[in-house]
Amino acid sequence: MVKALLIVMDGAGDRALKELGGKTPLEVARKPNMDGLAARGITGLMYAIAPGIRPGSDTAHLAIFGYDPYATYSGRGAFEALGAGLELGEGDVAFRTNFATVNEDWVVVDRRAGRYIEGAEELEKALNEIRIESHPEVEIVFKHTVEHRGVLILRGTSLSNKVSDVDPHKLGVRVPKAEPLDNDPSSKVTAEVLNEFTKKSYEVLSKHPLNKERERKGLPPANIVLARGAGKLPKVPSLREKYGLKAATIAGITLIKGVSRALGMEVLEVKGATGGLNTDVNAKFSKALEALNSGYDLVFLHIKGTDAASHDGNVRAKVSMIERIDRALGGFLSKVDLSDLLITITSDHATPITVRDHTGDAVPILMAWDELVSDEVSSFSERACMRGGLHVIRGTDLMNLIANFLGKLEKFGE
Amino acid sequence: MVKALLIVMDGAGDRALKELGGKTPLEVARKPNMDGLAARGITGLMYAIAPGIRPGSDTAHLAIFGYDPYATYSGRGAFEALGAGLELGEGDVAFRTNFATVNEDWVVVDRRAGRYIEGAEELEKALNEIRIESHPEVEIVFKHTVEHRGVLILRGTSLSNKVSDVDPHKLGVRVPKAEPLDNDPSSKVTAEVLNEFTKKSYEVLSKHPLNKERERKGLPPANIVLARGAGKLPKVPSLREKYGLKAATIAGITLIKGVSRALGMEVLEVKGATGGLNTDVNAKFSKALEALNSGYDLVFLHIKGTDAASHDGNVRAKVSMIERIDRALGGFLSKVDLSDLLITITSDHATPITVRDHTGDAVPILMAWDELVSDEVSSFSERACMRGGLHVIRGTDLMNLIANFLGKLEKFGE
Repeated sequence: MVKALLIVMDGAGDRALKELGGKTPLEVARKPNMDGLAARGITGLMYAIAPGIRPGSDTAHLAIFGYDPYATYSGRGAFEALGAGLELGEGDVAFRTNFATVNEDWVVVDRRAGRYIEGAEELEKALNEIRIESHPEVEIVFKHTVEHRGVLILRGTSLSNKVSDVDPHKLGVRVPKAEPLDNDPSSKVTAEVLNEFTKKSYEVLSKHPLNKERERKGLPPANIVLARGAGKLPKVPSLREKYGLKAATIAGITLIKGVSRALGMEVLEVKGATGGLNTDVNAKFSKALEALNSGYDLVFLHIKGTDAASHDGNVRAKVSMIERIDRALGGFLSKVDLSDLLITITSDHATPITVRDHTGDAVPILMAWDELVSDEVSSFSERACMRGGLHVIRGTDLMNLIANFLGKLEKFGE
Repeated sequence: MVKALLIVMDGAGDRALKELGGKTPLEVARKPNMDGLAARGITGLMYAIAPGIRPGSDTAHLAIFGYDPYATYSGRGAFEALGAGLELGEGDVAFRTNFATVNEDWVVVDRRAGRYIEGAEELEKALNEIRIESHPEVEIVFKHTVEHRGVLILRGTSLSNKVSDVDPHKLGVRVPKAEPLDNDPSSKVTAEVLNEFTKKSYEVLSKHPLNKERERKGLPPANIVLARGAGKLPKVPSLREKYGLKAATIAGITLIKGVSRALGMEVLEVKGATGGLNTDVNAKFSKALEALNSGYDLVFLHIKGTDAASHDGNVRAKVSMIERIDRALGGFLSKVDLSDLLITITSDHATPITVRDHTGDAVPILMAWDELVSDEVSSFSERACMRGGLHVIRGTDLMNLIANFLGKLEKFGE
């Protein structure tokens, strides 16, 4: 039985960088194992969504897993909630949140309340006690995740994701009110609930002993919860229903775990998988090997470090992250056999060092498995893969190709 | 006037086969004529439907003729009926059938009733006398085709193709009842009619003298008709209406003849065209030449042998079939002139020897005509055509390209 490993190096794609003599980080990185797979397999370019379209990590991954993001994307918050291990009902709406610091006029002083909030679980507890008086049927579920980050679920019967953010996304301005973004009555209700929650979060947090303590220490108080990215559970068939694939995800970051859970993939936890540059790549590959040997058809291995380095504009860190991934890949390859394993390596989008954000450029892709008809490309990069036999695919083609090679797809017609 | 010959080698596409040292059957076959056309023309890859999508022969050919199979495919049975030379009305539903052998509990003992049924025309006659008591307005039309195969038409005013198969597709299980697959009343009626026909086929056949004789000889009685693949006549414009092409088909198998007739192509019969490995390829090319000289704009030449060999997992037979086609092509080429003939050669889908069924891999395509701008590819195979100037097209692009080169397409805009 052929199985598949899909490796996504988040934001690994880049542009011709002046500081690299017109080359890309993938071109200058020493990565003999990826290049070896390119030589054995077939390569090409991929646009997660479409040429030029700048994807988020969530929409890019929806597309890569075969779901048209225009038809299925219903906001980031849902993925954050699922990724944080919360359950989400059909009537609920979820938000990504920040603990932030505002002054008495609700002008934002620090969008991250100093980033490190010791004892945040006490704030979490206080927030979960908030009752919404204007709509007592709506329940509050708040969960702190890491640093200043958290998730808010408004649990109801028909709440809406068509509400604007409370987070103004910048400093020195007042916290805006959430507004309904369409005329559906549920959007008005949701905005009212969110505004009441935000007000009460300030009331509860600004007088909380932990914040009094922070102020005494000269730390910015975590005195408000700023919610953004309203999201509903997407109504989609699972990867198993759609492609016959039993799939597992190995990822360091909440958002990707959440997208995976929304599509019915099992999220495997790995100690040391941080989603940062300090992540334990070897541990992730070890877990991937273990998963491939324990009944999963598809193991999805997501590595965020390349994107993190790109958002920081740190080209050295990006190259070095690619090289670390390649070394870990080398260890993995010594334990597997490409006669019954299809390895796909790609990136969900480019995050050029010069842009420090996601762009809609094409990214390279390689697929290696002994039965694939190989092309003449022997290096894995934006430039080398232009000549690849896969030519250009879209994200939504990828899972059909993988399921086809694994013999999992139903035939259409006779 | 430029004319076009489209040659489809069914299931000719394949994968890197261990037994061929990692090459494909098209790569190892000696085929100087196809390679010569590749050198003169332009090449590329094609997905009949889309990357990874596994097409049936029917949906693949719909796509190759320019019809979106998702919008137009309405079941195999209709093509089988048309291909067998029957007429199909808008209210009718048609099925592909097997004569099979069941025991007294209707458990399937032989899905093909021994495959060879001498005197099957007598059984056909008996089946055509069946009257449906539950729905007397529905008429039965049954036609035996070859071996155990046949076609059943339920002739009515608004019958449905949304009914499940009576054929269980395996041995040792009871014949299932046809069930309606949607809530339309016509689906319920169709299922009832099919179930009554199936019951009566058993009553009529199990006591038929021909079967008594078979049992005396120790042969499995052809004592039931198992129907599958309910199909309605697709409502589509003809190839002539859509592309201005007067088209003819040369094919050995019923299904392809039926698809062609559904699209308004004329089916030319060729003695010795069997659809098998023993088909008379030279006779088919001779007929193609004759058709091109007698007023057809497009002649479609379908060769099933490559697919038959692949379903049998017989790599030698596949290579040898490709070589036989190439020799016949050589004879044909000596009689034509590429200044006024566009030759396209491709495959409707891959049928890898290792899979023995259709897959969604890319297949090679070549187009040769003196006015085409050629590329540098000089060999016709999955690998060589990766570097071709056509890059990657979809099945639904092909007829537009052909009609365009033939000067048959209307201009869109001014």
